[in-house]
This record gives sequence, structure tokens and C-alpha cells, in this order.
Amino acid sequence: MTKYFTEEQSVSTVNARMGVDISPRLREVMSCLVKHLHEFAKEIELTQEEWDFGIDFVTQTGQLCSEERQEFILLSDVLGFSMLIDAINNRRPAGATENTVLGPFHVASAPIREMSANISLDGKGESCLYEGRVLDLYGAPIEGACVDVWSDNIDGFYDVQQPGLQPKWNNRGRFITGSEGFYRFVGIKPVSYPIPDDGPVGKLLDSLGRHPYRPAHMHFLVTAPGHKKIVTHIFVGEDHYINDDAVFGVKQTLVAPFEYVEGETEWRCPFDFVMVAETSAGKDSD
Amino acid sequence: MTKYFTEEQSVSTVNARMGVDISPRLREVMSCLVKHLHEFAKEIELTQEEWDFGIDFVTQTGQLCSEERQEFILLSDVLGFSMLIDAINNRRPAGATENTVLGPFHVASAPIREMSANISLDGKGESCLYEGRVLDLYGAPIEGACVDVWSDNIDGFYDVQQPGLQPKWNNRGRFITGSEGFYRFVGIKPVSYPIPDDGPVGKLLDSLGRHPYRPAHMHFLVTAPGHKKIVTHIFVGEDHYINDDAVFGVKQTLVAPFEYVEGETEWRCPFDFVMVAETSAGKDSD
Repeated sequence: MTKYFTEEQSVSTVNARMGVDISPRLREVMSCLVKHLHEFAKEIELTQEEWDFGIDFVTQTGQLCSEERQEFILLSDVLGFSMLIDAINNRRPAGATENTVLGPFHVASAPIREMSANISLDGKGESCLYEGRVLDLYGAPIEGACVDVWSDNIDGFYDVQQPGLQPKWNNRGRFITGSEGFYRFVGIKPVSYPIPDDGPVGKLLDSLGRHPYRPAHMHFLVTAPGHKKIVTHIFVGEDHYINDDAVFGVKQTLVAPFEYVEGETEWRCPFDFVMVAETSAGKDSD
Repeated sequence: MTKYFTEEQSVSTVNARMGVDISPRLREVMSCLVKHLHEFAKEIELTQEEWDFGIDFVTQTGQLCSEERQEFILLSDVLGFSMLIDAINNRRPAGATENTVLGPFHVASAPIREMSANISLDGKGESCLYEGRVLDLYGAPIEGACVDVWSDNIDGFYDVQQPGLQPKWNNRGRFITGSEGFYRFVGIKPVSYPIPDDGPVGKLLDSLGRHPYRPAHMHFLVTAPGHKKIVTHIFVGEDHYINDDAVFGVKQTLVAPFEYVEGETEWRCPFDFVMVAETSAGKDSD
């Protein structure tokens, strides 16, 4: 083996350069990254022009990032990478509620509301009663669980996207379960909306013949002492985009029934959350 | 197979989303990229915190890019990715001069100088006579070849890095070969220098136990009608960093003799360039 760079031994040459006293995990991650990056280039014989294009693409992606926008997370999302990381880090036993991506619109410390409160403050959209229980894997109710919820409004925007146009905390709230583990609130039946598509990621989607839409969903972040948090959505099963979410967030178990009812609300969405104990086996990031 | 995202079928789910009427090459490149990205995350079970770190790293890298600095190219360089792309796109028959990276300091349209001219305009450093011939694969001289050369000065900086401090076109020039294919000029024996290491890439190198230095080298860009261009360096073989160039640019055939001579210059570096005809087989980006 020559001590210098060759196409054939590019991976071992680069990885052999790492020092001896570095973090073992960093060595593992970087070795694997270099291996796959190089294998990618070799497998498709990436041209110099394609490399130029790629450098320009990631540069533009980085330059669009700001306090208000994270184009690299968007890129990770549309390549299914964010969902993959979520899946790897949140493997759960059968019966437990599955995770999906957090998304960029969660706001910590939303108001804690009385059970059955209406979180739709702009009065727009079709009303929907969300209710169910927070349970453990054995069916026992979890008291004191925090059910943090948020959705877009009828125009497809979250309150934080329209600070002057929507009431503060529109379609957001936190609910604390009682002894029987019940939660219950009124929101709207959410609508599908496009992810920001006026940047490099939008151009990429367009080149790939893909649309930027997410199927309608209500976000849930469920936490309880002694249990692994659940970050998930409930999806409207009849949504036009249910089979091709731009960020691959849909899972079979998260497609919920939205029942048309003629009562105080137009719709009803029953859904139970099943939490896994902290002490349970399985990789989790928390 | 479920129609929704699963950890096991993440690659096929993402790649199946591409439209039917897109560029076949784009489909090939993106499919391969998604496959390797996902395999990377699965192989090392990338954690959520490591993903956060990665998003932050590429964001910082993009935000440091400007007209004067390209941190993503630097990242590509230190991961051996730039050299790999160069290698894939410039495979040449035995005997032909090998390529290496162009680097960020080439300036088009440097002055065309008389043969034997001295390009060191600041008078600093140890003088060195560079001479040799530009030949084809069969040993025939190439007349009218343009030998475009550039190096750092004795302080390790290129003229464009020190616009007020160095004379314009210091250590740069172009030379046109005559009927025998000879080139000849006086420069300095170059010195090793660090790549910019005050950004994310510098921090990465530090975490990996790697230094940011490049071994001393003279850049050459050799072009001639009917021949594939050569983008290369000649390296000073005795350099302290010759075995661990931060960007993996060194190749065995590019390590040149620098002979100490007692003549009009202190050093002499003889080197012949061997060009491949445009019509020759082999992938090339030009």
C-alpha cells in the first residue's frame, strides 16, 4: 500500500489519518461517514461538475439558515433522514405509540388549559373533539401526563408563522391528565400545507418530481414522569397527501379516524397514547 | 411492504417517491446518495444529539462561506472527497502526469512571462530553477503548451491572501513552450502552510487529532490544444508534512527532486509533464 492517496484506497488513507487520542465514538462516526461518502462518489462516478453543483447546493442551503429558518433540517426531512434518525432512536415495543418528527413549529411552555377547552382562538375551521387516554404498556392509565398539542389553522399556517394575523397560542395548548389518564380538547380538523419551498430544498423537490405538501396532522408531545416522551402526530387519514408526505412522517399506526359527528363539534378524533417506561429496554435519546 | 416509512425500508420508500419524468442521472445520483446516507446512519446508529451536532456543523460551514472563503470545499478537501472526485474524473494511462487538487488560490490570466523569468517579485525566499519539458505520451515535445504556475511566498501566503503586503502576481506566471517543449522559470522553493483552520473545518481537524498543514508545493496548470489539461502540484519531497498533507493531495509521482545547486539559484527542480491526447480513452471532466 502506498502511503499516498489513491482512488482504490481512498477510505483507508483518509481514516488512517485520525489521531490516537480522539473520542472513540467520533472515530467510529467519521470513519463510517468517510466510507459512505467515498463509496457514493465511486458508485456513481460523480463528475467534477456534479461536485461543483453539490458544493453550491450545500452552500446555498447553509446561507439560507437563520433564526427563523433551518434549511438543512428541511433537507434532512425531505431525504427521509430525520425520520430515520427518529426511528433509530425511538424503537419501541409493539403496542406503544410510535414517534414521528417534531417539526419546526413546536413552542415550549404553551398555556396549560382546562380539560375540554377549545384551543382554536381564531374561530376558523371545522371543529374537532380530540379525546382519549394516556396509558402504559399494560393498559393502566397514567395520571399527571402532559399532553402538549399544536396544529396549523385553516389556512395552513401555525400561529408563529403569522404573528400579527393569528391570536397568540392559536391552536396550541397543554393538558394534564387526571387519575383515569383522560385528555380531551377541542381544536380544528387540520389541513395539509406545503413546507417552505422557495429555497434550495424546494428546487430539489421540484427537480425530483416531488411536491412539498404534508398531509393534515395534529401534533402531540406527551410526557409523563418515569416514561419515555412521545413526539408524534395524528394524521387525517382521508387527506390527499396521506400516502406521500413530503417529509415521510406518516406511520400506519398514526393514521387516525376522524369521525363526522353532529354534536358540539363537527368532527371527533379518538386516540389513546401508550407510553413506555423509562426503564424499558430500547434506545431512546432522552 | 407498508406504503409508509419504516426503518427497514427507509431507502426504498424515499427513492420510490421520485417522479417518472426526471433526469435519469439525477435519479441515479440521488438514489445512491440517499442509500449511503441512510446506511451511514443505520450502521453507526446515529443518535439524535449527533444529528443535532451535524445539522449545526453544516449550518456553520455554510454560513462561513463568502466571496473570499469556501468552507464546504475545505470540508470536502480534508475528507479526501475532493481528491477522490479528481481521481475518478482524471484517470490516465501509466506515464502521464497525475492530477491533484486545484486549490482555492489559482487566478486566471496571470501574466505571460519570457522563458527563464523570475516570478518571485518580493525577493524573499530561497530561489529555485524550475525546468523541464511538456511531452506527449510517446515522448514527443508539445509546442505552444501553456504552463501556468503559482506558489505561496516564504511566509506561506499566496499574493491574493495579502493584497497590500505582496506585489501583485508575486510567485505567479504563465510560460508558453517552444518547439522543443521546454519551460523554464525561477521561483522560490515553496514552504508548507496551514489551510484556514479558524472555522468549523479547523475544529473538526482538531477533534480528529489532525493538523491543518499542507506540504510545500508549486502549483502547475498545464494546457495545450488537443490535450487534456493537467492540474497538479510538484511537492518538495523533504517537507515535514509530505506524508500527511491535510487535503491528501500528494501522489508518489508528484514528489519531485529539489536539488541544492550553487549557481544563479540555490535550488533546481527538474520535472517533465506528460500530457494525454483529448481523443484518448478515460473519463475526464473537460
